[in-house]
Parts: sequence; C-alpha cells; structure tokens
Amino acid sequence: MILFHNIPQLITFASGSQRGLRLGELGMVENGAIVCEGEIILAVGETDALLNQFPQADRIDLAGRAVVPGFVDPHTHLIWAGNRANEFEMRLQGKTYMEIMAAGGGILATLTATRKASLDQLVEEARRRADAAFSFGTTTMEAKTGYGLDIETELRQLEAILELDRDALIDLVPTYMGAHAIPPEFKGDSAGYTRFLCEEALPATKIWWQQHAGERQLPFVDVFCEAGVFEIEETREILTAAKALGFPLKLHADEFENLGGASLAAELGAVSADHLVKTSAEDIQRLAASETVAVSLPGTPFGLAQSEYTPARQILAADGYLALATDLNPGTTWNESMQFIQALACRYLKLTPAQALAASTINSAKAILLDHKVGSIEAGKQADFLALNTPDYRNLSYRYGGNQVDLVVKKGEIYPFAF
Amino acid sequence: MILFHNIPQLITFASGSQRGLRLGELGMVENGAIVCEGEIILAVGETDALLNQFPQADRIDLAGRAVVPGFVDPHTHLIWAGNRANEFEMRLQGKTYMEIMAAGGGILATLTATRKASLDQLVEEARRRADAAFSFGTTTMEAKTGYGLDIETELRQLEAILELDRDALIDLVPTYMGAHAIPPEFKGDSAGYTRFLCEEALPATKIWWQQHAGERQLPFVDVFCEAGVFEIEETREILTAAKALGFPLKLHADEFENLGGASLAAELGAVSADHLVKTSAEDIQRLAASETVAVSLPGTPFGLAQSEYTPARQILAADGYLALATDLNPGTTWNESMQFIQALACRYLKLTPAQALAASTINSAKAILLDHKVGSIEAGKQADFLALNTPDYRNLSYRYGGNQVDLVVKKGEIYPFAF
Repeated sequence: MILFHNIPQLITFASGSQRGLRLGELGMVENGAIVCEGEIILAVGETDALLNQFPQADRIDLAGRAVVPGFVDPHTHLIWAGNRANEFEMRLQGKTYMEIMAAGGGILATLTATRKASLDQLVEEARRRADAAFSFGTTTMEAKTGYGLDIETELRQLEAILELDRDALIDLVPTYMGAHAIPPEFKGDSAGYTRFLCEEALPATKIWWQQHAGERQLPFVDVFCEAGVFEIEETREILTAAKALGFPLKLHADEFENLGGASLAAELGAVSADHLVKTSAEDIQRLAASETVAVSLPGTPFGLAQSEYTPARQILAADGYLALATDLNPGTTWNESMQFIQALACRYLKLTPAQALAASTINSAKAILLDHKVGSIEAGKQADFLALNTPDYRNLSYRYGGNQVDLVVKKGEIYPFAF
Repeated sequence: MILFHNIPQLITFASGSQRGLRLGELGMVENGAIVCEGEIILAVGETDALLNQFPQADRIDLAGRAVVPGFVDPHTHLIWAGNRANEFEMRLQGKTYMEIMAAGGGILATLTATRKASLDQLVEEARRRADAAFSFGTTTMEAKTGYGLDIETELRQLEAILELDRDALIDLVPTYMGAHAIPPEFKGDSAGYTRFLCEEALPATKIWWQQHAGERQLPFVDVFCEAGVFEIEETREILTAAKALGFPLKLHADEFENLGGASLAAELGAVSADHLVKTSAEDIQRLAASETVAVSLPGTPFGLAQSEYTPARQILAADGYLALATDLNPGTTWNESMQFIQALACRYLKLTPAQALAASTINSAKAILLDHKVGSIEAGKQADFLALNTPDYRNLSYRYGGNQVDLVVKKGEIYPFAF
C-alpha cells in the first residue's frame, strides 16, 4: 500500500464525464493525497485525514507537485511502418500533391511499407512512439489499423496492438479501420471495397478477434467518411454491418467537407465522432443531443498549417461531450504529446486549461468506453496518474513545447521521468 | 580523446553562416564521425578515415543516430520570477486586457515579482528553464534582463545570468534590456526614462560589468521599439548611447506595428533585429543589405494564437541572414524548445527542415556573435552537438511536440537523455 501526499492541487474529475459547459469541473482537493493498493486506487482525500487513516502505508512525498489523471488519447494511428519526412519536405519545397503522389508519397507510401513489415517490425516501430507518449503522460491510448486494407495486414496490425498492449507500459484500445482509404486493388470501385468490407473483412475480423482475444470487447470499427473516400451511404453500410456484428462504432467526420457524418454517428449510436472541423450548427445539435462524444484533433490542422479548427465552443454551448486526441499518424501530424494538444486547444479552440484537461482525461476515456476505469482519480479506479513539475495544473497548457510530467503512476507502478 | 562514429547523417554547416537562399546548405557527411579532445572538436570526417587516423581514441557508437550542432537560442527572457498562468486563463475566459491589468496582470506582474526576488530565487527559477532547454538540445542561449527596470534589479538579473552561465550545463550570453518597458516610476514619461537609461543606467551597467565580468565582452543592449513603449527616436537615442559606450546592439522591431525598427537596426549596425512581423518590403531590403541578422520568433504569434508571422521567405529572397529563437518569456510564449520552433518555422514560415535547422544553429550563433565558436561541427570549434533518435535530421521538424534528442554533447561532455 502506497500513500502519495503533499499534493497542492489534486485534480480528481470525480464527478465523471462532463457535458457541455460543465466541462472543466475539476473536483480539486487541496493538499491532497492518494492511497493505492496494487493496481487500484483505494482512497483519495486530504493529506492529514489519509495519513491518520492509513498509518501503515508506505509514503511518497510528491513535494508540492500538482497531480492529474493519466492522459487518455482516444484517436491515434499508432501502428505504421516507415517515415514520410521526405514528403513533408517536398510540400515545403512547393511540390504539388500530384508530384508527391508521383514520387510514391501519401497514404499509399505508408500502405506499401506496412504491408511489407513483419509483426515484429510493426511492434518495434510503434513501441518507440508508445513509449514517447507514455513519457509525456499518456497512460491509455486508442490505436487504429488502416494501413493494410487487406485482411492479412489489417489483422497483423490488430495483432501488433494486442502485443504492445501486453508488453508496453501504456494500455492500448484497438480499433479496426479497414475503411481508412480505398486500396489499390479496388481503385475507382469504392462500392466493391465497401461490399468486401461488409461481407468478408468484418466477419473475418470478428472471428480472428474471438480466437486471439477471447472474451475481450470487440475492437471499435471506424470509417473515414469524406468526399473521395467513403461517401455517407457507404459509411452507413459499413457501420450498420459492423453494428450488426456487435462492434462498437467510431467515425472520422467532417475533416475537409461536411457529408453529414456527425449526424450519422449520433443516429447510429457511435461512441465518438472525430475531427469535426466542417460540422454545421445543425449537426452539432444532433450530436449534442446524443451520447456520442465529439473528439477534436487540433494537431491535424496545426500539422498541415491550416487555420480552421473544430468549433469546440459551439459544441459546449450545445451541451455536447467534447474530448481531445492527438490523431498521431505519419501523414498529417506525427505528435505523441497530449500536453501539446492541450496547449493547442486553449489557443485555437479557446478552451480554458481546466476544460482542455478534462477533455484529455475523463471525457477522452468516455470516447473509448473506459470512463468507468480510467480518466479520473477515484477510489476503485485504476491507479493511473501524473505528478507534474509545477504546483499549478494550468501550466500544462500555459507553458508548452516541453514535458511537464515528472512522474507517471501506471497501474500503481511508479515511473519517474524528471530531468 | 573520444571518437563518435556510426552517424548516418552528420550535419556540419561547415561553410559558416548562410545568407538568403543559401540557407540550409547542410555540409552533410554520410557515415560520419567526430573526434573530440577535451572541450574542442579535433576532426570531422568519414568514419573509416577517422578510425584509421585516430586508432587510440575511445570510441562511442552512435548506432545510426543523425548528429546536428547543438541548438543556439539567440533571444530569450530567461530570467524572471513568478508565473502568469492565471492571466493566460483569464484571457481564455474572455477577460479583457484592462480587466487583466486591473487584476495585477501583464508585464507589471513579472516586474513586481522579479524586483522582490533574491538573486538565489532568480537563479533557481531560471535554472529549471535552462535545464529544460538543455534537455531539448539548446547548448547556448541568449538571456535578457528587463523585468527590473531599475538599476538594482537589472544588475541582479545580469548577475543571475553570469551565475547560471558558470553553474548550469548551458552557456548563456547576456543582454541588458532596461529598455523593455516604461517602469511605474516613469509612467507617462518615456522621455524621462530614456534620459535615465542613457545618462545613468547604461554607464552604471558598464562599470558594474567590468567589475564583475572583467574582460568578457560587454552584454548586448536591446530596446523594445514599439508604439506605446519606445518610439523610434527614443530607440535611436538609447542605442546610440549604448554604442558610444561600446555595447553591441540588438533590437525588438515590428512585432505589432512598423515604426522603422528594422531599418534603424541596419543603420546602426545592430547584431540582430528581432520579431519582424510587420516589417515592410523596403525595410527587408535595408536589413538584407546589412550584416544584421533577422531573428524570427514564431513562438510569439503561436503563443498568442495570432495568424501573422515573420515574412521569412521574403527575407531569404532579399538575401538576408535569417535566424530563429524561442522568445521564452512568461507573458506571450513560455516555451524552451528549439525543436518546436523548427516545427513551427516549417509550417508557418514555410522553411524547409534544412533551413529551419541552419537558422537554429549556425545563423543563430551569428545573431549573438558566436559563429566563430559554436553553431557548426568543425575542427577547432567547441564540441557542442546532438545525437537524435532518428537517422534522418528532417524528423526534427516533421515529427513534433516531443523530444528527439537522445544525447547532448556539451564542451565534450556527454549527457544522455534517451527514454
């Protein structure tokens, strides 16, 4: 039994996931303490009270550091092979999209590298990113497939997620995203690929999962609903088929154009709708009236130097659930840090530091159906939390560009990172 | 004697500081090696040749990591006391500038805290920031006074810079910036404060410096030339007085309005002109025709979520010297990472990764008159360089938000940071 004490601001988010303008209710305990037993939080309260109540506990003095829940990143494309720095450079040298494609760039470059990669290679490349995310405070991360687009590679990506989840410090939550793009084999035939997904890939994935992960909840199924990729009716077909098979749903919606993805997500009871840049006021209302979490990915417009971001304040005004994620991927935004995402969200979505933190913990846990287990600091929850290098949690978004996590506690184990 | 080898990309910038479109000439050695003797680089070349030439050297295998010069950050306000997270939060809650001032915010908040702080406190607060910068690869940093605005506190800030320069891992280069703002004692009397600076503060600073730093080059003198702070004629007066006393010059110019600061910097032979957001085409021409380095601070518009940045590509087209810096300060941009500044510069100034790196090393060394000593990897220079967690230097700006420095070599000493 370990008792962490001397915490000037202990941010618990004990009231659970937060709708609309309630976002940012901190549940702060001043001069707080946390008692852990194994992987679980046993008690949370004021230091004096807990020192009296648990005199037998080993004590760790956090010496004036603020404590917040471990960050939950609910949208990443963690598993890929290769590197597209050359493409990033070509864009900056003024090359056009077509020139980059002709040089073998774009998502096809990652597809080719990922199809060629062995399971071990996929795990090792992703492990470095997962470890970087962990050292910056992310204790739970969603991870998608979607760079194989054939059954074999997609399942190898799922296998990599399961293996990393077992071996790495971070907890991973899988999403199957065969519907990330149209593969070369189905070029110009999105209807044919949609049929393949519904009739072959999704059933095969379900069988594979039950053989390899047993009783564990099925992965999410996610679709890139965007002009030129999956149109709204194809998206509906795929998600409906996935739902019938028992998969929980997610959706990439309204990143570049509004096809009505956000409303479809609400209608089908998707767990989250992600991106939401071009979302209309009407779609925001439908989304906010549902349990679907709006996941904003401000790293993507930032990575592309675009000026338009998720209308986050409108989502809050409409009483929706808002969460934040990195969108970690090799094309538009290779960034693992949820600290940086909070700094961006304050500046470009006009969230307060408290709102950005809630959207990166308790609400992002809801966006992957884990808010009963992580995302807040409460008795009975998994012991996942961060001690910062500051007594004031607001520094997490005020100061930026570095790492303000001194220490990560993950399932009760202590990992110190302080410089 | 130490020989570092197995470096797929060794970026030397051996041709020196780089004007205009020459910016980004890498001087790359493939499969490179570096030999250090004490604090100094003895030889740079291909691995096989240097292994033959220096068989007696201790060997360190960098195992496929790219190596670049240590970053030089030529514009920071490193030395301050206190924290303005509350003000950052108030802005996001929609409070006006006047409400924030009424609540004791703004530069006056930092002035008050800094005047109250002891030398030890100033050193300790700044040391944490200097150490953070070092762990992200900055091996040399300029640091300004300017949060005292009376003789006593300004000299205490200078003393803190000298003490940190001696004790911390990073090398510091001092700038005296009594002309950072108009202090409360001279409210509404910028002419009076200008006279005070020219007739009292600058001469007193010179005497103090010679007593405390002996033969070491005088600090830079910098002025915040901006509407409502120091007008162009006051700026000219202060810089002319400083120049007559032998101080090298710097200038904050054109951050919010164009008062002609960039042209004045060129006219007076200032070492650098910094910010340069509202700089006109004519001013860019004058600047580019001089030896004055244009220092862009993209963290400042980013920190304030403003959309206008330095016209960097025009400065390059005009054949000017361009450098990058953090502007680290408690008001607009608390960021220590030059890695993040390179990521920003690629996205918002449209530099290539090679240009951003050159502007953060050899050219930023020129912006503080140290390009004879640091900023490149050449025989005879100080042994300051970085081993990255990637074989490809372009990842420094393509990937972002984290720390890609595995190892810092500073004056020949090795500091490993890899996770």
